[in-house]
Order: sequence, then C-alpha cells, then structure tokens
Amino acid sequence: MWTNVKDKALQERARQVIPNGMYGHESIASQPDDYPQFFTKASGTRLWDADGNEYIDLMCAYGPNLLGYGHPLVREAVLKQLDLADTCTGPGPVMVQLAEDFVSMVTHADWAVFCKNGSDATSMAMVTARAYKGRKKILVARNAYHGSSPWNTPSSAGIVAEDRAHVIYFDYNDLDSLEAAVALAKDDIAGIFATPFKHETFADQADPFPEYAKGVRAICDRIDALLIIDDVRAGFRLARDCSWSTVDVEPDLSCWGKVIGNGQPISALLGADKARSAISSIFVTGSFWFSAVPMAAAVATLKLVRETDYLEKLKSTGALFRNTLAAQAKSFGFSLRQTGPVQMPMVLFDDDPDWRLGYHWCRIAMKHGAYLSPYHNMFMNAAMTEKDIAMVMEATGIAFEDLKKNRDTIKPPEKLGALKRLLAS
Amino acid sequence: MWTNVKDKALQERARQVIPNGMYGHESIASQPDDYPQFFTKASGTRLWDADGNEYIDLMCAYGPNLLGYGHPLVREAVLKQLDLADTCTGPGPVMVQLAEDFVSMVTHADWAVFCKNGSDATSMAMVTARAYKGRKKILVARNAYHGSSPWNTPSSAGIVAEDRAHVIYFDYNDLDSLEAAVALAKDDIAGIFATPFKHETFADQADPFPEYAKGVRAICDRIDALLIIDDVRAGFRLARDCSWSTVDVEPDLSCWGKVIGNGQPISALLGADKARSAISSIFVTGSFWFSAVPMAAAVATLKLVRETDYLEKLKSTGALFRNTLAAQAKSFGFSLRQTGPVQMPMVLFDDDPDWRLGYHWCRIAMKHGAYLSPYHNMFMNAAMTEKDIAMVMEATGIAFEDLKKNRDTIKPPEKLGALKRLLAS
Repeated sequence: MWTNVKDKALQERARQVIPNGMYGHESIASQPDDYPQFFTKASGTRLWDADGNEYIDLMCAYGPNLLGYGHPLVREAVLKQLDLADTCTGPGPVMVQLAEDFVSMVTHADWAVFCKNGSDATSMAMVTARAYKGRKKILVARNAYHGSSPWNTPSSAGIVAEDRAHVIYFDYNDLDSLEAAVALAKDDIAGIFATPFKHETFADQADPFPEYAKGVRAICDRIDALLIIDDVRAGFRLARDCSWSTVDVEPDLSCWGKVIGNGQPISALLGADKARSAISSIFVTGSFWFSAVPMAAAVATLKLVRETDYLEKLKSTGALFRNTLAAQAKSFGFSLRQTGPVQMPMVLFDDDPDWRLGYHWCRIAMKHGAYLSPYHNMFMNAAMTEKDIAMVMEATGIAFEDLKKNRDTIKPPEKLGALKRLLAS
Repeated sequence: MWTNVKDKALQERARQVIPNGMYGHESIASQPDDYPQFFTKASGTRLWDADGNEYIDLMCAYGPNLLGYGHPLVREAVLKQLDLADTCTGPGPVMVQLAEDFVSMVTHADWAVFCKNGSDATSMAMVTARAYKGRKKILVARNAYHGSSPWNTPSSAGIVAEDRAHVIYFDYNDLDSLEAAVALAKDDIAGIFATPFKHETFADQADPFPEYAKGVRAICDRIDALLIIDDVRAGFRLARDCSWSTVDVEPDLSCWGKVIGNGQPISALLGADKARSAISSIFVTGSFWFSAVPMAAAVATLKLVRETDYLEKLKSTGALFRNTLAAQAKSFGFSLRQTGPVQMPMVLFDDDPDWRLGYHWCRIAMKHGAYLSPYHNMFMNAAMTEKDIAMVMEATGIAFEDLKKNRDTIKPPEKLGALKRLLAS
C-alpha cells in the first residue's frame, strides 16, 4: 500500500532549512499532489522513495540516467578511479583520454573543455562566441532553456536588464523570425544558439524542420557567427554524435552535460578549430572541473555509447511506450498529444486547458509505480525492457480508468498557479 | 631520479584536444618550468604524477583537500551512498541532514542551497541580493576573485561592459574607499561582497582589520544591503563557522565550496532568514545539484569539522611551516614575506621584482618532492604531520642552496608574461 508519511516528514524538516523546502528543477512544487520529494535508492530503471515505494522512473534524473542507474561498467570505472585520485592539484591522464574520445565521436569537434553544470557549458559558449570576433549579440530561440544563469533563467527575480542586453530572441523553426533578429543585431552577432529540438515545459515538443536547421547554418556562415548547439538535454539520446547530425548540420560549438557520465557530475563544451583561438583567450574554471572520477565515468559511458545498441534500445522502448500508450488512451476515450523524439517522450492531454487531466493521470500512475511528468519531457534509458513498459502500462491503465470514472469531479492543480507566477515574475 | 617524460607526452596529446593544452586554475601555464600537469594518484598529504614522482602537496587541490586525500571516513560515506543512489529524480534524505548540520554550525545561517561550483554560490548570492530589495548595485573589492562568471572573471576576453554595469569596486581594508563606492551607488545597493581575508594571486595576503569588518557590517545595516562573505576559498580553514566569526561579524549570506565534501563536488549558499524570501523568489538549478554522494561526503566532512582537532592541526602545522621556513630562508641569506593565515600560507621573496627567485626556488623544491606555488596561496590539510613539514624543509633547503649558488645566472620566468597578458587582456 502506497504511503508517504516519511516523505512528508522530510519535507517538513526541509522547509525549515531549505528555501521553499526545495529549489530548482527537482523541486516537486509544480508536480501533482503527493509526488515524493526524496529518494533513497536508484537501480537500473527503478527508484525507491523514502517510504519504500518503488517506481519505474521515466524521468531518469531529468536526463543523466542514460544506461540505467548504477550501470555496472560505469560503476566499475568510478570505483577504480576513486581508489587512485579524484579532485587533486591537477587533472588525471583520464582527462586527455576523455577529450580524445569525445572529439573522435563528435564530428564537428576538435577540442573539449570539461565543466560541471550544463549552464557552465552554455555560458562558456556565449563568452567564446563573443571572443570569436569581438561581437556582442547572442540570438536565442524564444522560451528556449539554456540554463539558469542570469542571461537565461526563466524567472526575472534578481535579474537586471543588462543581463540580457545583448540577447535577441527569435521563434524556433521560423527562418523569417531568425532573419528579422539578424537584421536587428546588425553587424554585431557573436553566435546563434540552437536547441536540437524544441523542448519547452508545458508545451508540445517540435522537431526541427531540416530546411530550418540548414538555414541556421547558412546564416551563421554568411555573417561569420558561431552556431552553438545546446545538447545538454538531448545529447546522446538522438545520435552517437551531436544531435543535429540527424539533420546533417554541424555546429561550431556544442554544449553537453547530464548523460555524459551517466549521472556523475560532468558537462562539456566542444568546439571546432575555428573557435579554438576564441576559447583559448577566455578565462573560465571551477573547483571541481578537473576531478578525475566523473571523467572516468564519462570515458566508460562514451565507450558504451560507441559499442552497444543503447540508442536502438532507447528508440524501440520509446516507440513501444508511445504506441502502447496511444492505444491505451484511445481505449479509455482520451486523446493524447505525444510529441518530440520517442526517446524523450512528451505526453499532453487534448482538451485539458487547466491541466487537470494530465495532473490527475500522473498522480494515479505514480501511486501505482510509474513516475511520469505532466509538464516536462520524459527520458528513456537503455536498461528499460518491454516488461518495464508493460508495468508502466498497468499503472497508466489504472490511471486512465480512474480519470474516466472521476472526470467530472477532478479539480485543476493548485500548485501550477504558483509555478506559473514564479516563471512570469 | 625525477623525470617528466610521461607528463610531457600527455601534455603533447592534450594540446591537440584541449584549448591551450589545459585551461583554468589547474593549468600549469603560469607555474615554474617542468611542473607536472597530470597526477595519477592522491593519498593523505601526497600526490604522484604521471611519471611516478611523489610530492607532499601544499596546494591541496587549490583548497578541497581539507582532511587528507581519500580520508577514510569520507570515503566510507561516499561508498555507502554510491551503493544506494547518487544523481536521480529527486535528492536523498541526506540533503535535509546536510542542510540541518550546516545551519547548526554556521551562526548566521538559517537555510542552505547546494550547488556545484563556487561561482554558482557567488552568482546566486548576487542574484539573491538583487532580489532582496529590487536594487542593482553590487560592491566588490578591487581584484577580489569571486569566480569566473562574466561579472567577475579576471580576463576580459568575451566579456561585455554590461556584465559589470552594476559592479562597483572599492579597496579592501579601506572604509573610506567603501564609503565612496556606497556614495557612488546612491540608493541602489543590493549587496556588498567581502572576502574573509585579502587573498590575491601574485600579491601579499592581508587579514581584515577588525574595525574594517565591523564597518562593512555597519554600512550594510545602515543602507539595508546584504553582506555576502565569499568563503569559497577560506571556509573551514579559519574557523568551524563562517570565517568572519573570527572578527565577530556575521554576514547575511555566505558562499561555500571546495572543502565542504573534502574533494567531492559540492558548494553552497547559506543565508539568514532576512534573505529567505529573496532566495525563495529566484530560479536557479543544475543537473547535479541534487546528487546524493557529494552530500553524503559533506555530512561526513562537517562531522569531522565539528568533532576532531583538524583546525588546531592546520594551525600548528601551518605555524611550524611558516616559522621553520623563515629561519631556513634567513640561514641561506634570503628574506621572505609570509602573509595571511598560517593555514593558507603565501610565500613571496623580498627583492624579487620579476619573480625569478620564487619561481626557481619552487621549481627545485618540486623536483625534490615538495609541491609549492610561487604565486598562489597554499593550503594546509589536517593529515599533515611534523614529519611531512620536515620533508618539505629538506626540499626547500635544497632549493635555497641551489638558489644561493645560482643567484646570478637564474632567468626570470618566461611564462609569467603570458599569464599577465591574459589577465590584463
């Protein structure tokens, strides 16, 4: 029987010593009621919360879990390196190997810089693009998330106008809009950020039109600005290369994070020789950017990316999830919008303007062992099996049944208002 | 016999795939010739480079090594947590414990936010201070390092004027200068950054005058701005509390990093209730900010901070190092300036305007097993013994002897020019 007594007690303690009881993207502030905040164990495809409830986890730590939590080969690399050295007065030889491996796998890349946060990589890309020709303007798709640094965080509290003085917005998949932004920036464009596909929260995802991706590249070439792919969220889930290799477009810089150490803390900025002089001229660093353990984990992860069928597994279990779920929804009389790549499922309900259907459905599925998100894209991991998907479908089936039965009495989520106020503040 | 064949080969490989062959504060770009770039092993007070040379390490990973590399109790906590969960879809209960422990130890703190880089904490402090009263100006001591984000990185490449539009500089330990900055900012001051002591590179360190520290607090109270202590570099090396507890001054926010997980990647922003509403209004996050392993390491480290005489050890071996070194220098006819707290030794040579004495001395000491820095403050760790200091003195004695013998033929370091150009660019 599902309970959350221990989680609620932890939440109460957390409220005393952690702002809002939790912060950032792993806060349950915008999740359905009763979602657990704390987890005590993770293994393969599973999570256990503080009350001992077990879940098949479709969020994968919001990305990092690519191969299954605690993958044995990554774990072995971590333990081996931990016995030797981790954070010390210089990096280990493993850093050279990792840079060589990464550069050999990512077509556009000639060099690599390793860091900790996805934001480290995106902010470093911005500074590098500005150093490239001494220009200032950065073009960013409207509502695209490139991290929570002042120039991009979705909230406006504590942010000053100057943080975004040289950021110009355009609409994703819309070359006319991009050309208008280019015209606005005149001759001062340092770089253009591109997300592999449009992956906003609370919205349908969208793949890039191939002519759009090629158009962005052509514009960058025309004005000699750097094309920056932010692959922090999608990296290695769409390809064994930079994600826009799927549309035959190579960027000048690419930002990586989340998956590259299968959960160990490491991110990266990769770049072409064209940008080597620019990256070499800037100063960026961090206390733990040279730590050897996450690099050893990344060497092991990249090896598995190269040598296993992890990507084909993500695609096949992703397709199975999407197709089975669509049929199940239909059988209960609901209509879903499932958008974006199957490896990163986004599931939204039709006819659900105040989110009550999606929130209730996720809440019931959660209580029956499937951890889904009603507002954020989910992530497949390579440890998932057909049996796991079948178990998820049992939980979602119960949730659809409950939703059908209680459709007229379900209330819209109250929490959502708070989140939307925060993001609009 | 000291050799560096393997290190040089790694450096050559690194030059192909890593900008400048290495970036950031752990690059040997500004170190004496022959300093090793890569380390294969770390244990207690020792480092081993890629060629197998062993060093007593006075840099302590530029801070993180507080208790000795691979401290058994921290290691035990890491392995135990690694078996359960690390980066997953929510934090572990260990996060609540860590926040409670930290808040109980740091007098001014009522809440904690955990992150990865020291820069995450200082930038979050800046945004929080701006959110506090909706004001913009941030006052920062001239040349103080608060991380490598665009608003504070010491290089200017890729940085735009707007990054620092609301940063106003004053001179450390100079209340008149601070009052002038306050007057310049008029009624728009969000916060004032304070370093526990003045710890610049290539310069003598300086302790804060107690009347200066109290004056900064009084000004913040007068104008209702937040006082932010950047304890990333000095935290827990001066006190078991925030570093300005040593001068009886409590800040509103404090930034922590480096040592708090004894090398595991974790940093923190701590704050008083006064700033709780401000921190609760901003949005900041990171892919690995909720990972449980570094938090478990921090719980173990903080316990050792509370329950052992680590601090007294840092002070006694630091004093032993300083006093023995001063006598040794004198006996060879050299005069040193040793400044700042003994736990974080800074050693500069008198009559050394182009740094040739300090650089040569460090280079020879390094080849005899003592890893020192000629331009950056060093760090003591609690594993150091009197025997370790005696071994360091053997190496420095050989270095002084060499320096005395070759004084007239030593050349100034060539690399230094490149570094100074970079920082001045």
